[in-house]
Amino acid sequence: MNAQRIISAVVGIAAGLLVAFVFFGDFGNEDTATSADNKSKAEKVFVPYGELDDYYMLASGGHSGQLFVYGVPSMRKIRTVPVFTPDPATGYGYDKESKEMLGDYTWGDFHHPAVSETEGDYDGEFLFANDVGNNRVAAVDLGIFHTVDIMDLPNMGGPHAGVFLTSNTEYIALPTRFARPLGGEYASLDKYEEEYKGVVSMTTFDKKKKEFDLAFQIVLPPWSYDLSDAGKKDSSDWIVMTTYNTEFATTNLEINASQNDRDYIVMINWKKLEKAVADGKYDDVNGAKMVDPRDVKGAIYAVPVAKSPHGVDVTPDGTRFIASGKLAPLMTVFSFEKAFDAIEKGDFDDEKFGIPILPYEDVMEREVDPPGALGPLHTQFDDKGHAYNTMFISSEVVKWKVDTGEVIDRKPSYYSPGHASAAEGDTVDPDGKWLVALNKIAKDNFLSVGPSHPESMDLYDISGEEMEHIMAAPVDPEPHYAQIIHRDKIKPKKLYEKDEDRPNSVWSVDDAHIERKGDEVHVYGVALRSRFVFDAKAERPDAVTVKQGDKVFFHMTNIDLDQDITHGFGINDYNLNFEVQPGQTSTLEFVADKAGTYPIYCTNFCSALHQEMSGYLLVEPK
Amino acid sequence: MNAQRIISAVVGIAAGLLVAFVFFGDFGNEDTATSADNKSKAEKVFVPYGELDDYYMLASGGHSGQLFVYGVPSMRKIRTVPVFTPDPATGYGYDKESKEMLGDYTWGDFHHPAVSETEGDYDGEFLFANDVGNNRVAAVDLGIFHTVDIMDLPNMGGPHAGVFLTSNTEYIALPTRFARPLGGEYASLDKYEEEYKGVVSMTTFDKKKKEFDLAFQIVLPPWSYDLSDAGKKDSSDWIVMTTYNTEFATTNLEINASQNDRDYIVMINWKKLEKAVADGKYDDVNGAKMVDPRDVKGAIYAVPVAKSPHGVDVTPDGTRFIASGKLAPLMTVFSFEKAFDAIEKGDFDDEKFGIPILPYEDVMEREVDPPGALGPLHTQFDDKGHAYNTMFISSEVVKWKVDTGEVIDRKPSYYSPGHASAAEGDTVDPDGKWLVALNKIAKDNFLSVGPSHPESMDLYDISGEEMEHIMAAPVDPEPHYAQIIHRDKIKPKKLYEKDEDRPNSVWSVDDAHIERKGDEVHVYGVALRSRFVFDAKAERPDAVTVKQGDKVFFHMTNIDLDQDITHGFGINDYNLNFEVQPGQTSTLEFVADKAGTYPIYCTNFCSALHQEMSGYLLVEPK
Repeated sequence: MNAQRIISAVVGIAAGLLVAFVFFGDFGNEDTATSADNKSKAEKVFVPYGELDDYYMLASGGHSGQLFVYGVPSMRKIRTVPVFTPDPATGYGYDKESKEMLGDYTWGDFHHPAVSETEGDYDGEFLFANDVGNNRVAAVDLGIFHTVDIMDLPNMGGPHAGVFLTSNTEYIALPTRFARPLGGEYASLDKYEEEYKGVVSMTTFDKKKKEFDLAFQIVLPPWSYDLSDAGKKDSSDWIVMTTYNTEFATTNLEINASQNDRDYIVMINWKKLEKAVADGKYDDVNGAKMVDPRDVKGAIYAVPVAKSPHGVDVTPDGTRFIASGKLAPLMTVFSFEKAFDAIEKGDFDDEKFGIPILPYEDVMEREVDPPGALGPLHTQFDDKGHAYNTMFISSEVVKWKVDTGEVIDRKPSYYSPGHASAAEGDTVDPDGKWLVALNKIAKDNFLSVGPSHPESMDLYDISGEEMEHIMAAPVDPEPHYAQIIHRDKIKPKKLYEKDEDRPNSVWSVDDAHIERKGDEVHVYGVALRSRFVFDAKAERPDAVTVKQGDKVFFHMTNIDLDQDITHGFGINDYNLNFEVQPGQTSTLEFVADKAGTYPIYCTNFCSALHQEMSGYLLVEPK
Repeated sequence: MNAQRIISAVVGIAAGLLVAFVFFGDFGNEDTATSADNKSKAEKVFVPYGELDDYYMLASGGHSGQLFVYGVPSMRKIRTVPVFTPDPATGYGYDKESKEMLGDYTWGDFHHPAVSETEGDYDGEFLFANDVGNNRVAAVDLGIFHTVDIMDLPNMGGPHAGVFLTSNTEYIALPTRFARPLGGEYASLDKYEEEYKGVVSMTTFDKKKKEFDLAFQIVLPPWSYDLSDAGKKDSSDWIVMTTYNTEFATTNLEINASQNDRDYIVMINWKKLEKAVADGKYDDVNGAKMVDPRDVKGAIYAVPVAKSPHGVDVTPDGTRFIASGKLAPLMTVFSFEKAFDAIEKGDFDDEKFGIPILPYEDVMEREVDPPGALGPLHTQFDDKGHAYNTMFISSEVVKWKVDTGEVIDRKPSYYSPGHASAAEGDTVDPDGKWLVALNKIAKDNFLSVGPSHPESMDLYDISGEEMEHIMAAPVDPEPHYAQIIHRDKIKPKKLYEKDEDRPNSVWSVDDAHIERKGDEVHVYGVALRSRFVFDAKAERPDAVTVKQGDKVFFHMTNIDLDQDITHGFGINDYNLNFEVQPGQTSTLEFVADKAGTYPIYCTNFCSALHQEMSGYLLVEPK
C-alpha cells in the first residue's frame, strides 16, 4: 500500500468500523447476546462486598498527567494518583514537598507506565511514568501510591517511547518522539537533518533514596521514536525501539512521514553503552553524558520494518520482538538470535548515522497478516505462547500463535483500540487471564456527556481458546497504556510510620506550638479527630494570628494512627488546601498577603464531628 | 445526651462499627451471601455492551473541585467534568475562556450539586455547584458537560449549605458555614458575636446568557449554616436551613459547639425578601444588596431542633421538612402547615437578631428514633411515602414511613455514610428505584492504595419493601452529595454547531492564516484528522515562527464535525495544553518568553495517524 492509499483508508473511524462490519461475522452477535451470556459475563466481573479484585490495573492518565488505578475484573476505578499535575483532592502540588517537586509545571502527558521489575517480573515496588508534554520522568511508590520523585530530562523532545525497564530495573529508558536541536535551541526547520536530533535518556532509580539519576543519553538521527521495549532473559542486554519519519519530513507528517515502505527498529545494547560511558566515551551536553553511535561501535543497530510501526514488544521468553505495522496491515516477528547472528557476521545492508542496518530478511522470522485486520498497534502475551494484537482501524483484537503465526481468534472492540494490557503481560511470566483493550473512541458505549465522550476500555476473558468480550468501562482522558499486576505483588502501607526524629513532626497535642522568626511564622500543629491544635497553650489552640506579609508555615502531623483517617486542611478564601494522611507530616508554605479573617477547616470528611473541625487564620493588617 | 457523652460515643469509627455489629442481626449476612444472591446482584448492575445505564449520577467531587459523572446502576465512572480546578485532560483552565473564568484560583471545594428544576422536577439543563473553599458558585451546561459560568460571592465564609434551588430555579441559595466579618475584614475572635456574621447568597441564573447574578444577600447571626433545602408546591416560597454553633463558640467547636440541647432550623420566605429588595430595603455591602431580618418583618423565622443537625430535607409533596440530628439519634419531622399556623398566630417563644423563634412543639410533628441508630445525616425519598436516612455512626441506611414514623427496614453501609442520593430523590416525583449512600470511610472495601483509601459508595435497590445492598463502588475524594437523574432528561449535544459568525473561527483549511499586530501573533488555525493547519499558504502550514517575547494567540477550530473526535493541542516543553471538541473554537494565549524549537502535537488520540499530527513552534531569540 502506498501512503496515500493508506490515508484514504483510515481517514475516519467510520471507515474502520465499516471494515469491522465486513470482516466479522460475529460483530453483530454482541448486540444480540443472549440473556444467559450476559448473566455469565455479569458474574465474572461482579466482586461482592467483602471480596477484592484480583488485579490492580495501573493506567496512564495521558494528558491528565495522572495515574489511574482500576480493579480487574470489576473495572471499578479505585484511585487517581497525581503524578505530573497538581491535585487538590490529595493536596498534591499544594504541600511544600510536592509543590517543589512539580516546580512551575501544571500538567504532564503521561503515556506509558512501567512497574519496577526483578528478573523480568513485576516486583510491585515502584511505578515509573514518562511526561511527553514537558520531558520528565516520575516514580510512584506503590507502598503509599504517592509520587516520590520527578526528574527533568534535558535534550529531549517528548519522551513518548518510554518508559520501558530493563529486567532488573537497571535502567528506565525514555526515547524521544519529536526531533529537536539538542537543548531545544532555536534552529530553522531547513536545518532539520543536520541540527535536529533524536535522543534516548537512560535513567536509573535508587529505590532506597527514592531518587532518579540521569546515567547517560544517546544521540540518534532525527527519526521519531514511537515505542520501545527491553529484552528479557537472553536478550536482556538489549532495548528495541520503533521509528517513523525516517523520511525527515518537516511538515504535514500525515503524508510526508508515510512515504517510505520501511522504517526501522533500532536495537541498543545498553550494557555496551554503559561500559562506553564508564570509559569516558561521551560528551557533556547540557549536563548529560551524551553517547554518539559513531563513537561506540557494536552497540547500536537497526533493522528495517514495515512502514510507520507503533509498538514493538518482546516475547515473555525473550527470544523475539514483534513490531506492529500501524500503516502496514501486518505484525512482524523478529528473532533476537537471528539479529545476533547477523551482527556476528557483520552482514550489513547499509549504515546510517553510524548505525549499521541489518538485512530485513536475515532478522525477520515471520510476517503475520490476518486478512482484513488493519492498523496493528501493540502486542500483549499470555502464558500459552499466544500474542494479542490490537487493530486500531478494524477495531478488534487478534489472537495468534507466536511460534507459527496461526491466527486463533478475533474479537471486535468498541472502538479503535490503542494499546492492550494483559494480566502480568509485560513480564517473563504472563498470567493469561484478562486482557483490557484501551480504546480511543467510545461513541455510543456510555451515557453521553456531550460532544467529547470518555475513552473506553474493553475487558476480555482470555483464559479460554476463544477470547470473550465481557464488558466496556469508561475512563477519563486518556490511558495510553496500562499494566495489570496481581494484587499479591503490591504491599501498600497502612500508615505513615510514627517517627519521633522526623523534622517538623509533633506527636502529641500538648507539644503543638508556634515559633516566630522575623517575618516567618512556623506552626507545628497536629490534626486529630476532630480538631486542629496549632498552639496547645493558647486561649484558642485552633486559631493562628499573623501579620500581613508574614511567611507562614503550617507543619501539620496527622496523629490519628488509624488507616484511612485522612485530614484535609483548607483555608477559606486563600486558595489553599492540602492533606495529611495517618501518621504523615506535611508543610503548607505561603505568604499571608491578604489581611482579614480566614476560616481554616478539615476538607476531608473524617468523623461525625468533621464539620466542627475548624479554626481561624487571622491576618492583622499592616 | 450531653455533648461530652456524644463525643465519647463517636470518637472513632470503630465505635460506630461496633454499634452496627450489635444492632444488626443481618450485618454479617452480607459476608456470607449465597452465590445465588450474588448472581442476582451481578445481573442487576451489569450493563451489557450495546445498552446504557438508566441514570446519570452527578456527584460533587469535594475538594477535587470537580464534578464526577457516574452511570447507575453500573456505578461506572463516565467522566470528570472540571468545575473549580484546572484540568489538562480537557484543557480546562488552559484555554483563554476557561482560564479567565477560573482567575487565579487553582482549586475549589464542591459540596452539593443541584440540577436545574422546573416545577420542582429536574429539567436536566444545568447543574449548579458551590465552592466552600473559595466562596464561589458555578454552572455546568448539561448539554455539553462544560462549566459555563463561575461567580465570586462577596461577604461569604464557605457557602457549605448550598446549593439548593427553588422549584423553578428562581434562586440558587448558598448559605455560609463559617461566620466571618462582612467582606472578610480582620476582626479579633473576641468580637465574634458583634462583628462576625452568617450570610446567605441568593443568586439567579440566566439560562440564555448562561450567567449568574447575585440578586441579594441576607445577613444572619454568626451561627454556622450546615445544609438547606427549598420548599416544594405549597411551601415553595420557603427555604429551610440547619444551624449549629448557636453557642457562638470560637474555639474547639468539637466540644464547645455541642453544648446546647437545641440549635435551629431557619425558615426564610424568599418571595417576601425579593419584594423587600425591590422596595429598596437593603444596604449595599461590598457590592451586594444586603437584607437584614431586623428590617424585614415576616420573612425569617427559626424553629428549635435537636442539637447540631446536619441535613434538612423537604418531602416530595412539600408538606414537611425533616431534620437529621447528627449529634442526636433522631430525625425530626416538622410540618410546614404547623409552622405557617404558628407564624399566623404570632405565637413566638423568643426573638434572636430580629428572628422570631417558633415553639418547637407547635411545629414539630414527629420524632423518629430507631433504636441504636446513631448519627443521622441526611434524608432521601421514594415514590411511596418513605424516607431513607443515612446514619454516619451506626453505618446504616434506615427506611421509614414519613406519615407514621414507622421504621420499615435497616441495612448496613460500608462505612459511615454522609449523604445518600435516590433516583430523582430531590424532586416532587422521586423514582423509588436506586439509592446510593456516599460513604466517608472505605477501610477494606477495595484493593488498598496505601494509608488513604478511596471513598466508597453503596448502591441499594430500593424498589422492594426491603432495601437490598447491591455493591460498593470506589470514588476519588470526595463526593459530599449527588443527584441521580433519569437519562431521558439530559440532552447532550453531539457537536458544537458550525457557526460562520463565531469570532476567531476558521472553517476551512484554506482559510487558516496568521496575523501579526505589533508584538501580538494571532494564529487562526484548524485541527482536523490528522494535521494542524496554521497558515494554509506557508511552505510549512503546521509551523509557526514568532519572536521571543511575542504574545501568541492560537485560535483553533476543530473542523472534524463528527462526535467524539476531539483534538488536543500541546506545546512540548512550554507547559501548555488545551483541546478543541468537534466544532469548537478555543484560544490559547501565552507569551513566548523562551526562545527555541518546540514541537506542537495533538494530545488527544484522534485517528490512525494521530501520532503524525504535529508541527513546530519556533521562537527566534531576541
